[in-house]
Amino acid sequence: MSDLSKIYVVGIGPGEFEQMTFKAGKALEDCDVIVGYTVYVDLVKEHFPSKDFLTTPMRKEVQRCEMAFEEASKGKTVAMICSGDAGVYGMTGLMLEIGERYPGVTVENISGVSAVISGAGILGAPLIHDFAVISLSDLLTPWEKIEKRIESAAEADFVLCFYNPSSIKRNDYLEKACSLILKHAAKDTVCGIAKNIGRDEEQYSIMTLEELKDTRVDMFTTVFVGNSQTKVIGNKMVTPRGYKYE
Amino acid sequence: MSDLSKIYVVGIGPGEFEQMTFKAGKALEDCDVIVGYTVYVDLVKEHFPSKDFLTTPMRKEVQRCEMAFEEASKGKTVAMICSGDAGVYGMTGLMLEIGERYPGVTVENISGVSAVISGAGILGAPLIHDFAVISLSDLLTPWEKIEKRIESAAEADFVLCFYNPSSIKRNDYLEKACSLILKHAAKDTVCGIAKNIGRDEEQYSIMTLEELKDTRVDMFTTVFVGNSQTKVIGNKMVTPRGYKYE
Repeated sequence: MSDLSKIYVVGIGPGEFEQMTFKAGKALEDCDVIVGYTVYVDLVKEHFPSKDFLTTPMRKEVQRCEMAFEEASKGKTVAMICSGDAGVYGMTGLMLEIGERYPGVTVENISGVSAVISGAGILGAPLIHDFAVISLSDLLTPWEKIEKRIESAAEADFVLCFYNPSSIKRNDYLEKACSLILKHAAKDTVCGIAKNIGRDEEQYSIMTLEELKDTRVDMFTTVFVGNSQTKVIGNKMVTPRGYKYE
Repeated sequence: MSDLSKIYVVGIGPGEFEQMTFKAGKALEDCDVIVGYTVYVDLVKEHFPSKDFLTTPMRKEVQRCEMAFEEASKGKTVAMICSGDAGVYGMTGLMLEIGERYPGVTVENISGVSAVISGAGILGAPLIHDFAVISLSDLLTPWEKIEKRIESAAEADFVLCFYNPSSIKRNDYLEKACSLILKHAAKDTVCGIAKNIGRDEEQYSIMTLEELKDTRVDMFTTVFVGNSQTKVIGNKMVTPRGYKYE
Protein backbone atom coordinates (compact mmCIF):
# COMPACT_ATOMS: atom_id res chain seq x y z
CA MET A 1 0.00 0.00 0.00
CA SER A 2 1.24 3.45 -0.82
CA ASP A 3 0.89 6.32 1.61
CA LEU A 4 -2.50 7.94 1.82
CA SER A 5 -3.01 11.09 -0.18
CA LYS A 6 -3.39 14.19 1.94
CA ILE A 7 -5.41 17.38 1.93
CA TYR A 8 -4.70 20.18 4.37
CA VAL A 9 -7.72 22.40 4.98
CA VAL A 10 -6.01 25.64 5.94
CA GLY A 11 -7.37 28.76 7.61
CA ILE A 12 -5.13 31.56 6.34
CA GLY A 13 -6.36 34.18 8.82
CA PRO A 14 -7.86 37.57 8.03
CA GLY A 15 -5.73 38.43 5.03
CA GLU A 16 -2.24 39.72 5.71
CA PHE A 17 0.34 36.95 5.42
CA GLU A 18 1.71 37.58 8.92
CA GLN A 19 -1.57 36.65 10.59
CA MET A 20 -1.24 33.08 9.31
CA THR A 21 0.11 30.48 11.76
CA PHE A 22 3.55 28.90 11.27
CA LYS A 23 1.73 25.59 10.78
CA ALA A 24 -0.44 27.02 7.99
CA GLY A 25 2.67 28.44 6.31
CA LYS A 26 4.37 25.02 6.44
CA ALA A 27 1.33 23.27 4.97
CA LEU A 28 1.30 25.69 2.03
CA GLU A 29 5.04 25.15 1.61
CA ASP A 30 4.59 21.38 1.75
CA CYS A 31 1.72 21.03 -0.75
CA ASP A 32 1.76 20.67 -4.54
CA VAL A 33 -1.56 22.35 -5.30
CA ILE A 34 -3.43 25.20 -3.60
CA VAL A 35 -7.20 25.19 -4.10
CA GLY A 36 -9.58 27.98 -3.10
CA TYR A 37 -12.00 30.76 -3.82
CA THR A 38 -10.36 33.18 -6.27
CA VAL A 39 -10.05 36.07 -3.79
CA TYR A 40 -8.19 33.99 -1.17
CA VAL A 41 -5.89 32.34 -3.68
CA ASP A 42 -4.81 35.81 -4.79
CA LEU A 43 -3.89 36.62 -1.17
CA VAL A 44 -1.32 33.78 -0.94
CA LYS A 45 -0.13 33.46 -4.54
CA GLU A 46 2.82 35.85 -4.29
CA HIS A 47 4.24 33.97 -1.29
CA PHE A 48 4.13 30.54 -2.95
CA PRO A 49 4.72 31.28 -6.65
CA SER A 50 5.93 27.77 -7.50
CA LYS A 51 2.68 26.01 -6.58
CA ASP A 52 -0.16 25.01 -8.86
CA PHE A 53 -3.34 26.98 -8.22
CA LEU A 54 -6.94 25.94 -8.81
CA THR A 55 -9.85 28.26 -8.14
CA THR A 56 -13.63 28.24 -8.29
CA PRO A 57 -15.93 31.24 -7.85
CA MET A 58 -18.37 31.75 -4.96
CA ARG A 59 -21.36 29.36 -4.79
CA LYS A 60 -19.25 26.60 -6.36
CA GLU A 61 -18.19 25.17 -3.00
CA VAL A 62 -19.12 21.55 -3.76
CA GLN A 63 -17.15 21.60 -7.01
CA ARG A 64 -14.20 23.19 -5.20
CA CYS A 65 -14.13 20.34 -2.66
CA GLU A 66 -14.44 17.67 -5.35
CA MET A 67 -11.60 19.32 -7.27
CA ALA A 68 -9.39 19.07 -4.16
CA PHE A 69 -10.17 15.36 -3.71
CA GLU A 70 -9.61 14.63 -7.40
CA GLU A 71 -6.16 16.25 -7.23
CA ALA A 72 -5.31 14.30 -4.06
CA SER A 73 -6.49 11.09 -5.70
CA LYS A 74 -3.82 11.65 -8.38
CA GLY A 75 -1.23 11.48 -5.59
CA LYS A 76 -0.76 15.20 -5.11
CA THR A 77 -0.64 16.89 -1.70
CA VAL A 78 -3.35 19.53 -1.69
CA ALA A 79 -4.03 22.62 0.44
CA MET A 80 -7.62 23.84 0.41
CA ILE A 81 -7.52 27.40 1.74
CA CYS A 82 -10.19 29.49 3.46
CA SER A 83 -10.00 33.00 4.84
CA GLY A 84 -10.07 33.17 8.64
CA ASP A 85 -10.56 29.64 9.96
CA ALA A 86 -11.84 26.83 7.75
CA GLY A 87 -13.94 25.46 10.63
CA VAL A 88 -16.03 28.62 11.19
CA TYR A 89 -18.67 28.70 8.43
CA GLY A 90 -15.84 27.33 6.27
CA MET A 91 -14.96 24.39 4.08
CA THR A 92 -13.87 21.84 6.71
CA GLY A 93 -17.43 20.57 7.17
CA LEU A 94 -18.15 20.03 3.50
CA MET A 95 -14.68 18.50 3.02
CA LEU A 96 -15.41 15.89 5.71
CA GLU A 97 -18.84 15.21 4.19
CA ILE A 98 -17.54 14.78 0.63
CA GLY A 99 -14.48 12.96 1.97
CA GLU A 100 -16.67 9.94 2.73
CA ARG A 101 -16.50 9.21 -1.00
CA TYR A 102 -12.68 9.27 -0.96
CA PRO A 103 -11.56 6.87 1.80
CA GLY A 104 -7.98 6.88 0.50
CA VAL A 105 -7.53 10.59 1.20
CA THR A 106 -6.84 11.97 4.69
CA VAL A 107 -8.05 15.45 5.59
CA GLU A 108 -6.14 17.53 8.16
CA ASN A 109 -7.58 20.80 9.47
CA ILE A 110 -5.12 23.60 10.25
CA SER A 111 -6.69 26.30 12.39
CA GLY A 112 -6.59 30.01 11.59
CA VAL A 113 -7.64 33.32 13.11
CA SER A 114 -11.32 33.75 12.21
CA ALA A 115 -12.94 37.19 11.77
CA VAL A 116 -14.67 36.92 15.15
CA ILE A 117 -11.19 36.91 16.72
CA SER A 118 -9.38 39.34 14.41
CA GLY A 119 -12.30 41.76 14.29
CA ALA A 120 -12.52 41.80 18.09
CA GLY A 121 -8.80 42.50 18.23
CA ILE A 122 -9.15 45.59 16.07
CA LEU A 123 -12.16 46.92 17.97
CA GLY A 124 -10.62 46.43 21.41
CA ALA A 125 -11.85 43.60 23.61
CA PRO A 126 -15.56 42.93 23.04
CA LEU A 127 -15.31 39.14 23.62
CA ILE A 128 -14.07 39.08 27.19
CA HIS A 129 -17.41 37.59 28.17
CA ASP A 130 -19.84 35.03 26.67
CA PHE A 131 -20.67 35.61 23.00
CA ALA A 132 -22.74 34.26 20.14
CA VAL A 133 -21.73 34.18 16.48
CA ILE A 134 -24.50 34.37 13.87
CA SER A 135 -24.37 34.53 10.08
CA LEU A 136 -26.99 36.88 8.63
CA SER A 137 -26.90 35.08 5.29
CA ASP A 138 -30.16 33.32 4.53
CA LEU A 139 -28.85 31.56 1.43
CA LEU A 140 -28.68 28.24 3.32
CA THR A 141 -30.64 29.03 6.51
CA PRO A 142 -34.28 30.14 6.87
CA TRP A 143 -34.47 33.79 8.01
CA GLU A 144 -36.93 32.83 10.78
CA LYS A 145 -34.26 30.62 12.38
CA ILE A 146 -31.74 33.47 12.21
CA GLU A 147 -34.27 35.83 13.85
CA LYS A 148 -34.91 33.35 16.65
CA ARG A 149 -31.20 33.06 17.36
CA ILE A 150 -30.68 36.84 17.37
CA GLU A 151 -33.54 37.40 19.81
CA SER A 152 -32.57 34.55 22.14
CA ALA A 153 -28.96 35.68 22.30
CA ALA A 154 -29.89 39.33 22.87
CA GLU A 155 -32.33 38.42 25.61
CA ALA A 156 -29.66 36.38 27.42
CA ASP A 157 -27.23 39.34 27.21
CA PHE A 158 -24.62 37.66 25.01
CA VAL A 159 -22.14 39.79 23.11
CA LEU A 160 -23.10 39.23 19.45
CA CYS A 161 -20.93 38.88 16.38
CA PHE A 162 -22.47 38.88 12.89
CA TYR A 163 -20.82 37.30 9.85
CA ASN A 164 -22.16 38.08 6.36
CA PRO A 165 -24.05 41.16 7.61
CA SER A 166 -25.03 42.34 4.15
CA SER A 167 -24.98 41.74 0.44
CA ILE A 168 -26.46 43.45 -2.60
CA LYS A 169 -29.68 41.44 -2.31
CA ARG A 170 -29.92 41.66 1.48
CA ASN A 171 -29.03 45.23 2.40
CA ASP A 172 -31.58 45.60 5.21
CA TYR A 173 -30.79 42.46 7.25
CA LEU A 174 -28.51 44.23 9.71
CA GLU A 175 -31.22 46.83 10.27
CA LYS A 176 -33.73 44.04 10.94
CA ALA A 177 -31.29 42.33 13.32
CA CYS A 178 -30.76 45.57 15.26
CA SER A 179 -34.53 46.09 15.57
CA LEU A 180 -34.83 42.64 17.15
CA ILE A 181 -31.97 43.31 19.55
CA LEU A 182 -33.52 46.67 20.54
CA LYS A 183 -36.48 44.75 22.00
CA HIS A 184 -34.08 43.51 24.71
CA ALA A 185 -31.11 45.89 24.82
CA ALA A 186 -30.61 49.62 25.42
CA LYS A 187 -30.35 52.04 22.50
CA ASP A 188 -26.88 53.10 23.64
CA THR A 189 -25.50 49.54 23.78
CA VAL A 190 -21.91 49.77 22.51
CA CYS A 191 -21.40 48.30 19.03
CA GLY A 192 -18.53 48.14 16.57
CA ILE A 193 -17.82 47.25 12.98
CA ALA A 194 -14.50 46.05 11.53
CA LYS A 195 -13.91 46.27 7.80
CA ASN A 196 -11.23 44.78 5.52
CA ILE A 197 -9.55 43.13 8.50
CA GLY A 198 -5.86 42.44 7.89
CA ARG A 199 -6.00 43.97 4.42
CA ASP A 200 -5.38 47.36 2.81
CA GLU A 201 -7.79 49.96 4.11
CA GLU A 202 -8.52 48.08 7.33
CA GLN A 203 -10.82 50.27 9.42
CA TYR A 204 -13.15 50.13 12.38
CA SER A 205 -15.72 52.28 14.09
CA ILE A 206 -17.53 52.27 17.40
CA MET A 207 -21.16 53.38 17.67
CA THR A 208 -24.39 52.84 19.58
CA LEU A 209 -26.91 50.13 18.71
CA GLU A 210 -29.30 52.79 17.49
CA GLU A 211 -26.61 54.17 15.16
CA LEU A 212 -25.70 50.66 13.96
CA LYS A 213 -29.31 50.14 12.94
CA ASP A 214 -28.95 52.95 10.39
CA THR A 215 -25.48 51.97 9.22
CA ARG A 216 -24.93 50.32 5.84
CA VAL A 217 -22.17 47.71 5.78
CA ASP A 218 -20.74 45.47 3.07
CA MET A 219 -19.80 41.79 2.94
CA PHE A 220 -16.20 42.54 4.01
CA THR A 221 -17.45 43.83 7.38
CA THR A 222 -17.81 41.95 10.68
CA VAL A 223 -20.27 43.44 13.16
CA PHE A 224 -20.18 43.30 16.97
CA VAL A 225 -22.94 44.20 19.45
CA GLY A 226 -21.83 44.52 23.06
CA ASN A 227 -23.62 43.12 26.11
CA SER A 228 -25.19 45.31 28.82
CA GLN A 229 -21.76 45.87 30.43
CA THR A 230 -19.72 46.70 27.33
CA LYS A 231 -18.17 50.17 27.45
CA VAL A 232 -15.97 52.51 25.43
CA ILE A 233 -12.41 53.10 26.63
CA GLY A 234 -10.34 55.45 24.47
CA ASN A 235 -12.28 54.67 21.28
CA LYS A 236 -12.06 50.92 21.92
CA MET A 237 -14.96 48.55 22.68
CA VAL A 238 -14.36 46.69 25.96
CA THR A 239 -16.54 44.08 27.68
CA PRO A 240 -15.37 43.78 31.29
CA ARG A 241 -14.80 40.31 32.73
CA GLY A 242 -15.49 41.55 36.22
CA TYR A 243 -12.03 41.77 37.76
CA LYS A 244 -11.87 44.09 40.75
CA TYR A 245 -9.31 46.90 40.65
CA GLU A 246 -9.18 50.51 41.71
CA MET B 1 8.90 63.75 23.16
CA SER B 2 10.32 60.26 23.08
CA ASP B 3 8.49 57.42 21.39
CA LEU B 4 5.60 55.89 23.26
CA SER B 5 6.31 52.72 25.21
CA LYS B 6 4.63 49.67 23.78
CA ILE B 7 2.93 46.54 25.07
CA TYR B 8 1.93 43.75 22.72
CA VAL B 9 -0.91 41.63 24.09
CA VAL B 10 -0.23 38.36 22.33
CA GLY B 11 -2.43 35.30 21.86
CA ILE B 12 0.02 32.41 21.55
CA GLY B 13 -2.55 29.88 20.35
CA PRO B 14 -3.36 26.51 21.91
CA GLY B 15 0.14 25.57 23.02
CA GLU B 16 2.44 24.17 20.36
CA PHE B 17 4.76 26.84 18.99
CA GLU B 18 3.71 26.20 15.38
CA GLN B 19 0.12 27.25 16.05
CA MET B 20 1.26 30.81 16.82
CA THR B 21 0.92 33.38 14.02
CA PHE B 22 3.99 34.85 12.31
CA LYS B 23 2.95 38.21 13.78
CA ALA B 24 2.89 36.81 17.33
CA GLY B 25 6.34 35.29 16.79
CA LYS B 26 7.70 38.64 15.61
CA ALA B 27 6.25 40.48 18.62
CA LEU B 28 7.93 38.02 20.99
CA GLU B 29 11.18 38.43 19.04
CA ASP B 30 10.85 42.23 19.17
CA CYS B 31 10.10 42.63 22.90
CA ASP B 32 12.44 42.95 25.88
CA VAL B 33 10.22 41.37 28.51
CA ILE B 34 7.62 38.60 28.33
CA VAL B 35 4.92 38.72 31.02
CA GLY B 36 2.33 36.02 31.70
CA TYR B 37 0.78 33.30 33.77
CA THR B 38 3.49 30.80 34.73
CA VAL B 39 2.14 27.92 32.60
CA TYR B 40 2.08 29.98 29.37
CA VAL B 41 5.50 31.53 29.95
CA ASP B 42 6.93 28.01 30.21
CA LEU B 43 5.42 27.23 26.78
CA VAL B 44 7.41 29.99 25.01
CA LYS B 45 10.57 30.22 27.15
CA GLU B 46 12.66 27.75 25.17
CA HIS B 47 12.03 29.61 21.92
CA PHE B 48 13.06 33.03 23.26
CA PRO B 49 15.75 32.24 25.85
CA SER B 50 17.33 35.70 25.76
CA LYS B 51 14.24 37.56 26.99
CA ASP B 52 13.41 38.62 30.52
CA PHE B 53 10.42 36.76 31.95
CA LEU B 54 7.97 37.90 34.61
CA THR B 55 5.17 35.68 35.87
CA THR B 56 2.28 35.82 38.28
CA PRO B 57 0.07 32.90 39.36
CA MET B 58 -3.64 32.50 38.55
CA ARG B 59 -6.04 34.95 40.20
CA LYS B 60 -3.34 37.66 40.14
CA GLU B 61 -4.48 39.09 36.81
CA VAL B 62 -4.64 42.73 37.95
CA GLN B 63 -1.10 42.57 39.34
CA ARG B 64 0.09 40.92 36.11
CA CYS B 65 -1.29 43.79 34.04
CA GLU B 66 0.16 46.44 36.34
CA MET B 67 3.53 44.68 36.14
CA ALA B 68 3.41 44.91 32.33
CA PHE B 69 2.63 48.64 32.40
CA GLU B 70 5.35 49.32 34.98
CA GLU B 71 7.93 47.60 32.77
CA ALA B 72 6.74 49.53 29.73
CA SER B 73 6.92 52.77 31.71
CA LYS B 74 10.65 52.09 32.20
CA GLY B 75 11.00 52.22 28.43
CA LYS B 76 10.97 48.48 27.78
CA THR B 77 8.94 46.84 25.03
CA VAL B 78 6.69 44.28 26.70
CA ALA B 79 4.78 41.25 25.46
CA MET B 80 1.91 40.13 27.68
CA ILE B 81 1.06 36.59 26.58
CA CYS B 82 -2.16 34.61 26.88
CA SER B 83 -2.97 31.10 25.70
CA GLY B 84 -5.35 30.98 22.74
CA ASP B 85 -6.42 34.53 21.94
CA ALA B 86 -6.00 37.36 24.45
CA GLY B 87 -9.37 38.82 23.43
CA VAL B 88 -11.49 35.74 24.28
CA TYR B 89 -11.91 35.71 28.08
CA GLY B 90 -8.31 36.96 28.07
CA MET B 91 -6.19 39.86 29.25
CA THR B 92 -6.84 42.41 26.46
CA GLY B 93 -9.90 43.79 28.23
CA LEU B 94 -8.21 44.30 31.59
CA MET B 95 -5.12 45.73 29.84
CA LEU B 96 -7.25 48.38 28.11
CA GLU B 97 -9.03 49.16 31.40
CA ILE B 98 -5.82 49.51 33.43
CA GLY B 99 -4.15 51.25 30.48
CA GLU B 100 -6.27 54.32 31.18
CA ARG B 101 -3.84 55.04 34.01
CA TYR B 102 -0.83 54.85 31.67
CA PRO B 103 -1.54 57.25 28.78
CA GLY B 104 2.10 57.11 27.65
CA VAL B 105 1.92 53.40 26.86
CA THR B 106 0.30 52.02 23.68
CA VAL B 107 -1.33 48.59 23.74
CA GLU B 108 -1.43 46.49 20.56
CA ASN B 109 -3.47 43.28 20.42
CA ILE B 110 -2.08 40.41 18.34
CA SER B 111 -4.71 37.77 17.63
CA GLY B 112 -4.27 34.06 18.23
CA VAL B 113 -6.13 30.80 17.71
CA SER B 114 -8.53 30.48 20.66
CA ALA B 115 -9.64 27.09 22.03
CA VAL B 116 -13.06 27.44 20.40
CA ILE B 117 -11.25 27.37 17.04
CA SER B 118 -8.49 24.86 17.78
CA GLY B 119 -10.82 22.52 19.69
CA ALA B 120 -13.28 22.54 16.82
CA GLY B 121 -10.43 21.73 14.45
CA ILE B 122 -9.51 18.61 16.40
CA LEU B 123 -13.09 17.40 16.73
CA GLY B 124 -13.95 17.88 13.06
CA ALA B 125 -16.16 20.77 12.03
CA PRO B 126 -18.75 21.54 14.73
CA LEU B 127 -18.77 25.33 14.08
CA ILE B 128 -19.96 25.40 10.48
CA HIS B 129 -23.16 27.00 11.72
CA ASP B 130 -24.10 29.62 14.36
CA PHE B 131 -22.55 29.03 17.78
CA ALA B 132 -22.42 30.41 21.30
CA VAL B 133 -19.39 30.42 23.59
CA ILE B 134 -20.01 30.30 27.34
CA SER B 135 -17.61 30.09 30.28
CA LEU B 136 -18.90 27.80 33.05
CA SER B 137 -16.74 29.57 35.64
CA ASP B 138 -18.82 31.42 38.21
CA LEU B 139 -15.83 33.11 39.86
CA LEU B 140 -16.74 36.43 38.20
CA THR B 141 -20.26 35.74 36.86
CA PRO B 142 -23.41 34.74 38.80
CA TRP B 143 -24.35 31.11 38.04
CA GLU B 144 -27.96 32.18 37.31
CA LYS B 145 -26.74 34.33 34.42
CA ILE B 146 -24.73 31.40 33.04
CA GLU B 147 -27.80 29.14 33.29
CA LYS B 148 -29.94 31.67 31.46
CA ARG B 149 -27.41 31.84 28.63
CA ILE B 150 -27.13 28.04 28.35
CA GLU B 151 -30.90 27.62 28.14
CA SER B 152 -31.43 30.45 25.68
CA ALA B 153 -28.70 29.20 23.37
CA ALA B 154 -29.91 25.59 23.52
CA GLU B 155 -33.49 26.62 22.83
CA ALA B 156 -32.39 28.58 19.75
CA ASP B 157 -30.44 25.54 18.47
CA PHE B 158 -26.97 27.12 18.61
CA VAL B 159 -23.91 24.90 18.64
CA LEU B 160 -22.43 25.45 22.11
CA CYS B 161 -18.83 25.69 23.25
CA PHE B 162 -17.94 25.71 26.95
CA TYR B 163 -14.74 27.21 28.35
CA ASN B 164 -13.72 26.42 31.95
CA PRO B 165 -16.08 23.42 32.13
CA SER B 166 -14.78 22.24 35.48
CA SER B 167 -12.47 22.82 38.40
CA ILE B 168 -11.85 21.11 41.72
CA LYS B 169 -14.51 23.20 43.44
CA ARG B 170 -17.01 23.02 40.56
CA ASN B 171 -16.97 19.43 39.32
CA ASP B 172 -20.72 19.19 38.64
CA TYR B 173 -21.24 22.34 36.50
CA LEU B 174 -20.97 20.52 33.19
CA GLU B 175 -23.56 18.01 34.41
CA LYS B 176 -25.86 20.89 35.38
CA ALA B 177 -25.31 22.53 32.00
CA CYS B 178 -26.18 19.30 30.16
CA SER B 179 -29.37 18.91 32.20
CA LEU B 180 -30.46 22.39 31.10
CA ILE B 181 -29.68 21.64 27.46
CA LEU B 182 -31.60 18.35 27.64
CA LYS B 183 -34.77 20.37 28.27
CA HIS B 184 -34.48 21.59 24.65
CA ALA B 185 -32.26 19.10 22.79
CA ALA B 186 -32.36 15.37 22.04
CA LYS B 187 -30.44 12.90 24.23
CA ASP B 188 -28.42 11.76 21.22
CA THR B 189 -27.29 15.27 20.24
CA VAL B 190 -23.69 14.91 19.06
CA CYS B 191 -21.13 16.32 21.52
CA GLY B 192 -17.35 16.37 21.73
CA ILE B 193 -14.56 17.19 24.15
CA ALA B 194 -11.02 18.27 23.26
CA LYS B 195 -8.27 18.00 25.87
CA ASN B 196 -4.72 19.38 26.04
CA ILE B 197 -5.14 21.02 22.62
CA GLY B 198 -1.83 21.60 20.86
CA ARG B 199 0.10 20.01 23.72
CA ASP B 200 1.46 16.59 24.65
CA GLU B 201 -1.32 14.06 25.10
CA GLU B 202 -3.79 16.02 22.98
CA GLN B 203 -6.94 13.92 22.74
CA TYR B 204 -10.59 14.16 21.81
CA SER B 205 -13.74 12.10 22.04
CA ILE B 206 -17.18 12.22 20.50
CA MET B 207 -20.27 11.22 22.50
CA THR B 208 -23.98 11.88 22.94
CA LEU B 209 -25.36 14.68 25.11
CA GLU B 210 -26.58 12.07 27.59
CA GLU B 211 -23.09 10.58 27.81
CA LEU B 212 -21.54 14.04 28.17
CA LYS B 213 -23.76 14.67 31.18
CA ASP B 214 -22.01 11.84 33.01
CA THR B 215 -18.50 12.68 31.82
CA ARG B 216 -15.97 14.29 34.15
CA VAL B 217 -13.66 16.79 32.50
CA ASP B 218 -10.80 18.97 33.77
CA MET B 219 -9.87 22.61 33.24
CA PHE B 220 -7.69 21.77 30.22
CA THR B 221 -10.75 20.55 28.31
CA THR B 222 -12.99 22.47 25.91
CA VAL B 223 -16.50 21.09 25.44
CA PHE B 224 -18.73 21.26 22.35
CA VAL B 225 -22.46 20.47 22.08
CA GLY B 226 -23.79 20.15 18.53
CA ASN B 227 -27.01 21.64 17.19
CA SER B 228 -29.96 19.53 16.01
CA GLN B 229 -28.25 18.90 12.65
CA THR B 230 -24.77 17.95 13.88
CA LYS B 231 -23.72 14.45 12.88
CA VAL B 232 -20.83 12.01 13.18
CA ILE B 233 -18.75 11.33 10.08
CA GLY B 234 -15.85 8.89 10.56
CA ASN B 235 -15.46 9.70 14.27
CA LYS B 236 -15.55 13.45 13.58
CA MET B 237 -18.24 15.92 14.71
CA VAL B 238 -19.68 17.79 11.71
CA THR B 239 -22.38 20.49 11.64
CA PRO B 240 -23.63 20.79 8.06
CA ARG B 241 -23.93 24.25 6.54
CA GLY B 242 -26.65 23.08 4.21
CA TYR B 243 -24.84 22.76 0.88
CA LYS B 244 -26.61 20.47 -1.56
CA TYR B 245 -24.61 17.57 -3.02
CA GLU B 246 -25.27 13.96 -3.94
